[in-house]
Amino acid sequence: MTETGKVYLVGSGPGDPDLLTVKAKRLLEEADVVLHDKLPGPEILGAIPEEKREDVGKRAGGEWTPQEYTNARMVELAEEGKTVVRLKGGDPTVFGRGGEELAHLAENEIPVEIVPGITSAIAGPQAAGIPVTHRDHASSVSFVTGHEDPTKDESAVDWDALAATGGTLVVLMGVGKLPQYTEALREAGMDPETPVALVERATRPDQRVATGTLDTIVSVRDEEEIEPPAITVIGDVAGERERVVEFLEGY
Amino acid sequence: MTETGKVYLVGSGPGDPDLLTVKAKRLLEEADVVLHDKLPGPEILGAIPEEKREDVGKRAGGEWTPQEYTNARMVELAEEGKTVVRLKGGDPTVFGRGGEELAHLAENEIPVEIVPGITSAIAGPQAAGIPVTHRDHASSVSFVTGHEDPTKDESAVDWDALAATGGTLVVLMGVGKLPQYTEALREAGMDPETPVALVERATRPDQRVATGTLDTIVSVRDEEEIEPPAITVIGDVAGERERVVEFLEGY
Repeated sequence: MTETGKVYLVGSGPGDPDLLTVKAKRLLEEADVVLHDKLPGPEILGAIPEEKREDVGKRAGGEWTPQEYTNARMVELAEEGKTVVRLKGGDPTVFGRGGEELAHLAENEIPVEIVPGITSAIAGPQAAGIPVTHRDHASSVSFVTGHEDPTKDESAVDWDALAATGGTLVVLMGVGKLPQYTEALREAGMDPETPVALVERATRPDQRVATGTLDTIVSVRDEEEIEPPAITVIGDVAGERERVVEFLEGY
Repeated sequence: MTETGKVYLVGSGPGDPDLLTVKAKRLLEEADVVLHDKLPGPEILGAIPEEKREDVGKRAGGEWTPQEYTNARMVELAEEGKTVVRLKGGDPTVFGRGGEELAHLAENEIPVEIVPGITSAIAGPQAAGIPVTHRDHASSVSFVTGHEDPTKDESAVDWDALAATGGTLVVLMGVGKLPQYTEALREAGMDPETPVALVERATRPDQRVATGTLDTIVSVRDEEEIEPPAITVIGDVAGERERVVEFLEGY
């Protein structure tokens, strides 16, 4: 009988191969198969030998591969005795469905290890000169996904409560719904002058940053034509950018 | 005249040298001087040649080095033309005073680059089998510092609002004040049956995990003698651990 292999749920970080962890880089070399979608980005994916890459992001017809397929494929490969890296953009357990994949593997008695990645929720603001916490400005930081529609009754995100924390808010995948949640935050009583920054393609060579306030950021987005993928940072920390940007290097 | 050097504010991650980024590892090799405290941990610090390490964590008498000294020293070294790594535990901008150091460097016209690190706020729960977000359980996650005393009037952390988000709460450095903020969260209406996990020395070889509920976790902490440094995870995601722990490898 073949000995069961192992699945590593690995975070790729925000896209710069230099921001892979030492462990992720080694596992990509050692793995028999790397299951991935497009999120890790072309530079990281391009460095993985073609013959061990399996794209579970999109299928031929342009449709998304169902999560069930990816889940089943991980189990199948491990049962064949393979060492499998399931490579995910950013960190595997920050809005990455890594928790679901982890549970599925455990239910199927597959040994699994999680390898964290640099999340763009932190590295994105940082690459724009914005620290997500700051002793003078923010003693908490909250990450939310902008894929939720705040106008729907069933929205799981409580923007009133998030506004009331007084901490930094980082919205991932939140360019499209920007008008809805900035409105929700204003209605929750957040100061319309609160600084807001948008970081498009954070840490990539073509990164762009646009800044405004809770009141102006939607117009700024439209004027600057900021497009996904981008991160929204809301809070006084966003104002730190202009203090440091002249001497900030890196991206 | 000497050309001004550069300061890299670098995150070391949670302590496992394998969780350094590729970039952090390279910069530690290339730097002229590495300014650090004890937080990166013995394995990472031990791999840096003695002659370029400068401990700005504690002074001879056991007192903490004032932040002003570290700030001034970074500027001084850069003005001597040195390549300086300011190595910080976890990520430099998550409760690390990295934002203040960044601002100080920019004010002194020192070129600066931030290199993100794996934050224990994500890697800590993960090493215990807990994803900080989950489609079924948590559509937001908030990081707060337990160094704040919630019984003080001037506490900057709004535990009522954090409870109301309905998302996962991760408290860093929060073993000591556990009784105060679990009480604050119960008073804010959080379900006393909410799962809570404590992860002591996350990702280190001697990591320990203790679990309970909002109601029981203080007794669990006392019985298990959980001590700092530890991370507190509060929310339904903490219950995921028991589903996966049998097949979870790594730490």
